[in-house]
Amino acid sequence: MRVHFFFTLSYFSLPCFPFVLLHRNLGKSGLRVSCLGLGTWVTFGGQISDEVAEQLMTIAYDSGVNLFDTAEVYSGGKAETERGLNRKHIVEGLKGSLQRMQLEYVDVVFANRTDSNTPMEEIVRAMTHVINQGMAMYWGTSRWSAMEIMEAYSVARQFNLIPPVCEQAEYHFFQREKVETQLPELYHKIGVGVVSWSPLACGIITGKYDNGIPETSRASMKPYQWLREKIMSEDGKKQQAKLKELAHIAEKLGCTLPQLAIAWCLRNEGVSSVLLGSSNPTQLTENLGAIQVLKPLSSLMFDFGVDHLLGNRPHSKKDYHH
Amino acid sequence: MRVHFFFTLSYFSLPCFPFVLLHRNLGKSGLRVSCLGLGTWVTFGGQISDEVAEQLMTIAYDSGVNLFDTAEVYSGGKAETERGLNRKHIVEGLKGSLQRMQLEYVDVVFANRTDSNTPMEEIVRAMTHVINQGMAMYWGTSRWSAMEIMEAYSVARQFNLIPPVCEQAEYHFFQREKVETQLPELYHKIGVGVVSWSPLACGIITGKYDNGIPETSRASMKPYQWLREKIMSEDGKKQQAKLKELAHIAEKLGCTLPQLAIAWCLRNEGVSSVLLGSSNPTQLTENLGAIQVLKPLSSLMFDFGVDHLLGNRPHSKKDYHH
Amino acid sequence: MRVHFFFTLSYFSLPCFPFVLLHRNLGKSGLRVSCLGLGTWVTFGGQISDEVAEQLMTIAYDSGVNLFDTAEVYSGGKAETERGLNRKHIVEGLKGSLQRMQLEYVDVVFANRTDSNTPMEEIVRAMTHVINQGMAMYWGTSRWSAMEIMEAYSVARQFNLIPPVCEQAEYHFFQREKVETQLPELYHKIGVGVVSWSPLACGIITGKYDNGIPETSRASMKPYQWLREKIMSEDGKKQQAKLKELAHIAEKLGCTLPQLAIAWCLRNEGVSSVLLGSSNPTQLTENLGAIQVLKPLSSLMFDFGVDHLLGNRPHSKKDYHH
Amino acid sequence: MRVHFFFTLSYFSLPCFPFVLLHRNLGKSGLRVSCLGLGTWVTFGGQISDEVAEQLMTIAYDSGVNLFDTAEVYSGGKAETERGLNRKHIVEGLKGSLQRMQLEYVDVVFANRTDSNTPMEEIVRAMTHVINQGMAMYWGTSRWSAMEIMEAYSVARQFNLIPPVCEQAEYHFFQREKVETQLPELYHKIGVGVVSWSPLACGIITGKYDNGIPETSRASMKPYQWLREKIMSEDGKKQQAKLKELAHIAEKLGCTLPQLAIAWCLRNEGVSSVLLGSSNPTQLTENLGAIQVLKPLSSLMFDFGVDHLLGNRPHSKKDYHH
Repeated sequence: MRVHFFFTLSYFSLPCFPFVLLHRNLGKSGLRVSCLGLGTWVTFGGQISDEVAEQLMTIAYDSGVNLFDTAEVYSGGKAETERGLNRKHIVEGLKGSLQRMQLEYVDVVFANRTDSNTPMEEIVRAMTHVINQGMAMYWGTSRWSAMEIMEAYSVARQFNLIPPVCEQAEYHFFQREKVETQLPELYHKIGVGVVSWSPLACGIITGKYDNGIPETSRASMKPYQWLREKIMSEDGKKQQAKLKELAHIAEKLGCTLPQLAIAWCLRNEGVSSVLLGSSNPTQLTENLGAIQVLKPLSSLMFDFGVDHLLGNRPHSKKDYHH
Repeated sequence: MRVHFFFTLSYFSLPCFPFVLLHRNLGKSGLRVSCLGLGTWVTFGGQISDEVAEQLMTIAYDSGVNLFDTAEVYSGGKAETERGLNRKHIVEGLKGSLQRMQLEYVDVVFANRTDSNTPMEEIVRAMTHVINQGMAMYWGTSRWSAMEIMEAYSVARQFNLIPPVCEQAEYHFFQREKVETQLPELYHKIGVGVVSWSPLACGIITGKYDNGIPETSRASMKPYQWLREKIMSEDGKKQQAKLKELAHIAEKLGCTLPQLAIAWCLRNEGVSSVLLGSSNPTQLTENLGAIQVLKPLSSLMFDFGVDHLLGNRPHSKKDYHH
Repeated sequence: MRVHFFFTLSYFSLPCFPFVLLHRNLGKSGLRVSCLGLGTWVTFGGQISDEVAEQLMTIAYDSGVNLFDTAEVYSGGKAETERGLNRKHIVEGLKGSLQRMQLEYVDVVFANRTDSNTPMEEIVRAMTHVINQGMAMYWGTSRWSAMEIMEAYSVARQFNLIPPVCEQAEYHFFQREKVETQLPELYHKIGVGVVSWSPLACGIITGKYDNGIPETSRASMKPYQWLREKIMSEDGKKQQAKLKELAHIAEKLGCTLPQLAIAWCLRNEGVSSVLLGSSNPTQLTENLGAIQVLKPLSSLMFDFGVDHLLGNRPHSKKDYHH
Repeated sequence: MRVHFFFTLSYFSLPCFPFVLLHRNLGKSGLRVSCLGLGTWVTFGGQISDEVAEQLMTIAYDSGVNLFDTAEVYSGGKAETERGLNRKHIVEGLKGSLQRMQLEYVDVVFANRTDSNTPMEEIVRAMTHVINQGMAMYWGTSRWSAMEIMEAYSVARQFNLIPPVCEQAEYHFFQREKVETQLPELYHKIGVGVVSWSPLACGIITGKYDNGIPETSRASMKPYQWLREKIMSEDGKKQQAKLKELAHIAEKLGCTLPQLAIAWCLRNEGVSSVLLGSSNPTQLTENLGAIQVLKPLSSLMFDFGVDHLLGNRPHSKKDYHH
């Protein structure tokens, strides 16, 4: 298991938020989270200084963000020699992280991609164990298939264990299938909510690849070759064309393209929170501003224009006919 | 969650009680509580000095009271920005209170009014968790509907969790419906008992509003406007009239009106304990004296006279005929 | 147990219904029932000839009614020497009725008023047994309190038995509390629906008691003395006054008072079906016509006028404030 | 519910099969079924005489087929006025069919498309009931989504009921997604197998629509307008082009195109059986011959050529990488 978890902050004083950040329940659990969260796992891994990291967290907190996604071992360097979701790794991994971070517990602990070597029963038992031990309040899944989540739920019900409350899933203009067609069914049937990540498609939606890939960008780094290839592919070029048109819509709405992209994720009420991964304060402030776009727009008009342009609205399973 | 709980005291020495304070089981649990308890949440919130508070507790303890209802955050000042009964709040809230009060555990932890955003399964799991962790011995509900309590019980049975043992409910001359018709059924079916509060109807029954509302009384304070309005309403005037007649009965019985009102609550054997909320020593001593009224009277005669006068005996569900 | 059950009919040919009779699910079960049903237990007990009985059933069936409520032992004469809901009575009672009625099974078998001598577990086990034996498809309750139904559900979940699907409850202009405030909560929590009976308040709403009690009416018979007394009471007189005003509304709507009363029950979407108890063909045809009133009316306008006049809209539990 | 079920035949004498028909387990159940089955529901509904029907069954049986898929009410004529999967319909429907077919039980009873009005618990309880009553040995699903099947499994485990053993799904050259990506996961997780139908895509793969739609074919009939439109669509034309090339491969392999198509379905080891829907003896014999194609070919070579040409191999969920 990659140790990966949420912690949520209480507001000690009432900060004068520049705008109101809506709170939503995490799935059908009782935990209220801000609809925008700060995903620190991409950016806090050595690419930015501690000073900037603190700055980012302060901006987020002052804006009303109470959800921080942290994944200790995402930070580069240390190679993971062991992986997997067996009981030992889940318990040891979380315990170690809590010690290093000097926390008593985390709010939500996540199981990343299922490990096909470990039976589901063992995973769900271990997650229930860390919750019962007070090391976490809830557990969630990350990049699991809908079927795997349903299996976890089924095991939890069969053995009276604790089922997961949310799934972390990629969701943006060009990756809609899972969040829009599969996960809503899970929410209605078993209460599992969605926390989405990568609202800007790893930077593709920021517009910074408009004129090819700048040498200083993430995509030019070695480990991100897949990203570079994706951008330069045939599909990638079509996406760039669509982004130009979407930028026009953003302009009409008086917002930036990233703000439009983030607000577009938030219009989906099945999404409990959208994790932002900004690595610099200006960007983060801009991204948090997306919340202001959400309100003024008639959601119908909004959807129509953008969805029409995207032309990739997935078919809901419910509409399926012979 | 408002952190709200009972702690019960053992008697280290056998005090020579001026009168015998009966003990009753809390619901069908094995916990024995004195039939009169001290509710500190109204009065200890800044209105009285620490000295008086200690005095009140000493009087109560010396009279055989072993039940103290404490609700840390009821005391004014700190505004709660977040509320709810999710797992995090239940666990954190209780943990924080135990630390501040330097207690290892409380006897009964209460969940105030159900939070419609949190599923019942989460509430019952969290309450079971704090009990399993040794932070509380039992859990109860406060101001829940009978149906909500039944749902909690049902969830507890389905998932092999711990059901609640008691409900805290308002009960006095002018508020009888829930305690007399709905809760007895719960007691018989699932063993949930009643701890009643406000036996003097927030002071209405003390007689201090006989001649209008004195400027120094609670009802003249800003946050108690609802109380002021209640007293001056048409119904309020009828109640004042009835109270005058009840005062005659009290006189015949050789007790005060508040003592009659408290003894009247205690005649209901479904009530495990009546919480007193007195804010001065003289009053508290008077109120504790209600126990002396209970015995000498033939309960039948007693009931008849008062109930006849009140004219609001609710119909028991069991007596219903077509 | 009074043997009391539903059977539903399939349509062998497509009858040309004079009007469309809507179908609704029985609670959250999959069984679809016509929103008007024929309750034969009052009227088929000797007061009418077999010929008329057959006529009534034909009219109902031809109008699209697929729900017939039959209660063998309601028919006068035979005194019930034994009552109760113990396993023996439930199983024997249903078996006997099926034999006499030459049916293999009934759709819904009902447990009348709970029997305080039999533990709930025994009742739910027996009901599950007759369903598992193929003698019934579902089971329901009749005149149970919401709490009792919740207890049955809780027992079913604890021991993996079959929970009830509906409650039969009295519901009309002057009896609203249970159906409007208590049962909706049950429907949302556990899926138990309502089948209502006595839409005309045992004939009070037909207007036939306008000028006192005619000698030939039911109310003049010995066993109906309670009905006679109810009509002549102070409350009864107030009701008669309201009925006169309601008759004016009905007139404006182009329908009769009974039709208005039945349509008023049907406007409540929590009611799966309203059982009609007419004892003569003309009356039944009139009552079935209520369905035509339901459609043309704007439900808002409808509710307002009638509810305002009735002045007895019960407070929803959800609205309760201190 | 459309009554729809399998019965399997034992071999009373050992027929000299012209070729060996492999048997496979139905999902992870212990039931062994021939890998080719006879689907009678399309063809036995009035389009062919009883004589031909008997002939077809004899040919199949003599070839080692032990799996017959029958769906009584698929046959035209009688209009179903009611549909759904409630307990009553499941039990009544199966009982009626068993009587008319003079069978004591069927091997597998199927629930067609889920009925959104009936809760899953009711469906699974009813299926368990007919199995416990001896009316069926197993139950399966037909055209359910993977999520719905998983939900049924979850409910079965939670309440200790019987889970389904197989899903009937459309599967052919041009419809691969569900069978190749979603159902394998179900097989591995919960043992649900696949019985596939329409291996020839409703006749599209027979080649009979090469030169337009003949007037005597199914596709020219009124109710099959959707089929006609599909064939004449843009996609349909591309498919016809691919079929021409596939016909060349078949020729090289010394088999017909339909045989190739059927063998191609069988190469998928997740498919327990492929249902054939032939309506004339010559065709059926040809189709059964597909089994002879399966063996001689190196499955690897086979797969490569055909899959390459089809160009629509779905991505397995398991192979997915970021």
